Amino acid sequence: MATITKRSEDYSKWYQELVIRAGLAEPSDVRGCMVIKPYGYAIWEKIRDYLDARFKETGHVNAYFPIFIPMSFFAKEAKHVEGFAKEAAVVTHYRLKNTPDGKGIMVDPDAKLEEPYIVRPTSETIIWNTYRNWIQSYRDLPILINQWANVVRWEMRTRLFLRTAEFLWQEGHTAHETADEALSEAKQMIEIYREFAENILAVPVISGVKSPSERFAGAVETFTIEGLMQDGKALQMGTSHFLGQNFAKAFDVKFLNRQGQLEYVWATSWGVSTRLIGAMIMTHSDDEGLVLPPKIAPLHVVIIPIYKNPEQLKAITEYVQPIIKGLKDKGITVKFDDDTSKKPGWKYNEYELKGVPVRLAAGPRDLEKQTIEIYRRDTLEKQFLPVANIVDYVEKLLDEIQQNLYKKALDFREKHTYYVNTWDEFKEKIEQGGFVIAHWDGTAETEAAIKEQTKATIRVIADFLPEEEGTDPFSGKPSKQRVIFARAY
Amino acid sequence: MATITKRSEDYSKWYQELVIRAGLAEPSDVRGCMVIKPYGYAIWEKIRDYLDARFKETGHVNAYFPIFIPMSFFAKEAKHVEGFAKEAAVVTHYRLKNTPDGKGIMVDPDAKLEEPYIVRPTSETIIWNTYRNWIQSYRDLPILINQWANVVRWEMRTRLFLRTAEFLWQEGHTAHETADEALSEAKQMIEIYREFAENILAVPVISGVKSPSERFAGAVETFTIEGLMQDGKALQMGTSHFLGQNFAKAFDVKFLNRQGQLEYVWATSWGVSTRLIGAMIMTHSDDEGLVLPPKIAPLHVVIIPIYKNPEQLKAITEYVQPIIKGLKDKGITVKFDDDTSKKPGWKYNEYELKGVPVRLAAGPRDLEKQTIEIYRRDTLEKQFLPVANIVDYVEKLLDEIQQNLYKKALDFREKHTYYVNTWDEFKEKIEQGGFVIAHWDGTAETEAAIKEQTKATIRVIADFLPEEEGTDPFSGKPSKQRVIFARAY
Repeated sequence: MATITKRSEDYSKWYQELVIRAGLAEPSDVRGCMVIKPYGYAIWEKIRDYLDARFKETGHVNAYFPIFIPMSFFAKEAKHVEGFAKEAAVVTHYRLKNTPDGKGIMVDPDAKLEEPYIVRPTSETIIWNTYRNWIQSYRDLPILINQWANVVRWEMRTRLFLRTAEFLWQEGHTAHETADEALSEAKQMIEIYREFAENILAVPVISGVKSPSERFAGAVETFTIEGLMQDGKALQMGTSHFLGQNFAKAFDVKFLNRQGQLEYVWATSWGVSTRLIGAMIMTHSDDEGLVLPPKIAPLHVVIIPIYKNPEQLKAITEYVQPIIKGLKDKGITVKFDDDTSKKPGWKYNEYELKGVPVRLAAGPRDLEKQTIEIYRRDTLEKQFLPVANIVDYVEKLLDEIQQNLYKKALDFREKHTYYVNTWDEFKEKIEQGGFVIAHWDGTAETEAAIKEQTKATIRVIADFLPEEEGTDPFSGKPSKQRVIFARAY
Repeated sequence: MATITKRSEDYSKWYQELVIRAGLAEPSDVRGCMVIKPYGYAIWEKIRDYLDARFKETGHVNAYFPIFIPMSFFAKEAKHVEGFAKEAAVVTHYRLKNTPDGKGIMVDPDAKLEEPYIVRPTSETIIWNTYRNWIQSYRDLPILINQWANVVRWEMRTRLFLRTAEFLWQEGHTAHETADEALSEAKQMIEIYREFAENILAVPVISGVKSPSERFAGAVETFTIEGLMQDGKALQMGTSHFLGQNFAKAFDVKFLNRQGQLEYVWATSWGVSTRLIGAMIMTHSDDEGLVLPPKIAPLHVVIIPIYKNPEQLKAITEYVQPIIKGLKDKGITVKFDDDTSKKPGWKYNEYELKGVPVRLAAGPRDLEKQTIEIYRRDTLEKQFLPVANIVDYVEKLLDEIQQNLYKKALDFREKHTYYVNTWDEFKEKIEQGGFVIAHWDGTAETEAAIKEQTKATIRVIADFLPEEEGTDPFSGKPSKQRVIFARAY
């Protein structure tokens, strides 16, 4: 089995090879679209199930809105159309017919839609067009709806999971009586995302708001969580938007408030996507392959028998039965790989590539000595332990791996986070990669000029950074706060 | 609250009003597409979770393939293109731009795709195009993949849940070494559908195969389950296809078999959709509204307090707490509706409309007498019972309602199933509505002529009907078996 490219050689190539070789996803013959393979989809199912439960605990329900959006809907919210309508898959016809020679098929020119439909890049417009009929009075509020769906954005440069023409996501769309309530909702959801990223994906993130030019098209405020990948680039992992009354105004959604007056409804939207899988891969994986945090791994433990003949395999099979049962009873997923067509060495490589957190192996000598070999994927450390307490040991080890991965990623981020005060320092650190914490004069002009010169953008105006007086290292103008710059995916 | 149209007045109108008024779904402003509202989506989630577990128990895994299919893929399987490519949403462009006056947006004529994409009506083509790269040898088989997805078929006449331009479904696509194995898979899946329809949705179905002209476009054999709705029309509720080697040949998917020879791969596909929700509504509901089988109802029990002042409400709230806890402990979902802005009568109507299987109500006199009022949605019967054993009673009642709904639907079907031997009888019974079991000479010509004259089609060549000699009532030609005719949705 060929090894994958090393991160130090070519990080992009490493990532692409890893995603494909670990069986997570692959490019398809449809431009920019990926096939999510069963192992990758199993991770998405865990993400979905976990978040879905959190959404329901916080009072949300699921629904489903059409995939097509009439083109005119996009024109109704001025900024939204700028942000989304440009890179869009456009449905213009509704029928095919045989070619004149009868050998092929072609688009039937007689079946042209009166108004083209856009395949949804996000659903604010179709949803607010629907909410207009659902909302008359404050008694109809709040509406707390989430949708699990596919969306399409015609990206020119794609990368598996991180940026694809079609991707899977969830999009929450809520409607409220007051600005305060909507703002609290938007903050609540970014906090759920933060907690999920850090506690489940073991990816430390910085929480805060976007600068006006990086806001979602149509939002008043965009909350974001940003991670730092191993190549020093930032990745936006989830956003939650306070939309003010922008979409209510665009779609004329008013309600009778408690004072008996007609008022526009307040809105939020929030989403995370299959991109989270990319974030997790880029944060933890190494040159051996995938490294999965136990809380998201579809398979926690693999057990591999080492044997020379069927009798030995039989004895080992019996030997590990109590371990398998013990692990399952604790809710730990385990696979005993007794496939006789593959050598143990092949299996070791395969499960390493697939990022299974813990590997156990047992051979005839283990049976004699009542031991078992245990290998942890995160540190690549191996040891022999008495078999007696192995189930409890594995349970604790999985927790330890989860903690260790988070700590390792946090250490990495801290080592690659720089407070800079001069423009030379700024350029140097951006070039090296990492989060650069610098003063900003608050203008879009400076932000654009910095992006032009360094490809770095303001990733987040972080919650943890206090207001402080300072000087913008680029413009030399006064600044009231430091913000976080980085090059980003 | 206005009542809904009665079934006897206008069955179609009754159905449409019921779906909307019960909050299950509604038409959208996108032609033929529906909005699935939270209550309807909650039912879909239960369908999905149940079936997903059954698919996984039988060795299947989930994956995700692109929503777009290059037009040329459809042309590769001759029958498939006839069946699906005609009514299709066609993506021809990938960008919009501002109109010359700057006030609106338009499709950018410079952004025309070289090859149009079809929004998937079903995914055999894109999946078999992918499987070609996954399969080299018998060791790569079987592939047992399922996909949960949205699909689009440009239907001209739509009806909520039953036939919409976009709908949600699952589609299984499996690849096998042998014809036998693929055939067993196709049969296994239709059996899972049958068991689900009957045991969970409480809808009795007839299982069997389709006549050649009713087969899935590209299938060698199509297995089906057919239900009978209250208006005497049949509804196809799920199909499972043995595809032979048709798609493997179309997409050149060969494998090295155990004899070392290259062979085309054998295939199945199978699916059920949000149509199942329509089937369930049409089977059980009545003029009062929705009737939900307990196994699929998002809410099993509603408790309504009858009170005149806050003290009474407080006392009733305390009174029902042990009931709520007891029901929840048994996994029964329960809602205590203490909304003070609505009268009990309004609530009674609302939960009746929504088909909640059991309603409990308690007032001051119940507290005195230690009783509770219990009302079952299926029979509309009300009684007062001692509160002491109410939790156990409700648990048993839910089972009884589930059984009763199935039995009632089965009785209905049996009363509307006719063995006919003459053409006059045939026409009469088809006109009355129901399943008509008649001999068929086995020709597509007769089948087409019968459809032309009566609008009835062969729904299913049922497993339960034995081979027997007879005469086709239409053509007078000899027949080897009876088949089931009906008008259908």
